[in-house]
Amino acid sequence: MISTLTLDIERQGLHDFSVELNAVVSGAELHEGLCTLFIQHTSASLLIQESYDPSARRDLELWLNRLVPENDPLYSHTLEGPDDMPAHIKAALTASSVSIPVMEGKLALGTWQGVYLWEHRHRPGKRRVIVHLT
Amino acid sequence: MISTLTLDIERQGLHDFSVELNAVVSGAELHEGLCTLFIQHTSASLLIQESYDPSARRDLELWLNRLVPENDPLYSHTLEGPDDMPAHIKAALTASSVSIPVMEGKLALGTWQGVYLWEHRHRPGKRRVIVHLT
Amino acid sequence: MISTLTLDIERQGLHDFSVELNAVVSGAELHEGLCTLFIQHTSASLLIQESYDPSARRDLELWLNRLVPENDPLYSHTLEGPDDMPAHIKAALTASSVSIPVMEGKLALGTWQGVYLWEHRHRPGKRRVIVHLT
Repeated sequence: MISTLTLDIERQGLHDFSVELNAVVSGAELHEGLCTLFIQHTSASLLIQESYDPSARRDLELWLNRLVPENDPLYSHTLEGPDDMPAHIKAALTASSVSIPVMEGKLALGTWQGVYLWEHRHRPGKRRVIVHLT
Repeated sequence: MISTLTLDIERQGLHDFSVELNAVVSGAELHEGLCTLFIQHTSASLLIQESYDPSARRDLELWLNRLVPENDPLYSHTLEGPDDMPAHIKAALTASSVSIPVMEGKLALGTWQGVYLWEHRHRPGKRRVIVHLT
Repeated sequence: MISTLTLDIERQGLHDFSVELNAVVSGAELHEGLCTLFIQHTSASLLIQESYDPSARRDLELWLNRLVPENDPLYSHTLEGPDDMPAHIKAALTASSVSIPVMEGKLALGTWQGVYLWEHRHRPGKRRVIVHLT
């Protein structure tokens, strides 16, 4: 019912983890239900986004980096590096949890939808996403 | 337990679909539980928002259109029209799924809350929202 | 299975309600499951955020206040005070519902994660958060 995915993330940006996620969903042998994802971090988030054209994902990253730049004089929380406070803000503007129905044993994603971990730091390391199926 | 709402959306903006949604919830004859909505698109989103005064919804749309304008020179993903990349960005900043408790057979919304599909494109057509009840 | 937390909120900003929330989760005596929170208001939201360093939360509030200022000439919805329309916009950009897995009887939060009510108005009063456990 609950699994933890540990993902090796090396850089900022959108990371497709559908291979790992679909393996958990298939393994549960659930015909119909609900899959809820929760990310155990405050500087990365979960995103359902266009999976077809990589240029859309690139523009999305560039746009958010422009909206929430590093080295903004507003920040007082700077001890953990210039990418830390922007990462917390980006995480607050995006999702920590997302729920996707399961139909006919699969995630009921739309034709162009993919599930991504959106990493907001430059050198993150391991990231944990908890998968709850019911 | 799972239903699909197919909504005919004709223009950008907030679209109230509580009539369709409440019909699904009533039909389920669930006294207490959880209703999870998931939108199968990456250029529209789900929003719980002020239902009383339409001026609040208008300002919200105007504000987001100003934050994420069309024809921004940052965009490289432009083949599908000037409203496509802004639509993906707006969808990333808002919700793809939302969960609302069911109490006494009804969605436990606050006094001023309504459930909206927030369409980010100008000529969208059919939009699918999956409703999971448990 | 469903409880309502009524929180006394006195000012704008992030409010930690983990004491109240953990009491509900412990009381449910659920070993493994899912906890879904839903806020019954359109000018406050739910946020999973860094719990360790208060400077991160302060910067987050300052940043959002700069992005969505009061007295923006764009607003036509102004009858309920200068903090009302910004509050609706901030609520639309953040979460109305969030789902957190329960593992070994506790919310499966990451090491640095806390659960907050993000109040967007200056003198809010009572706020209701519904907690669904399954």
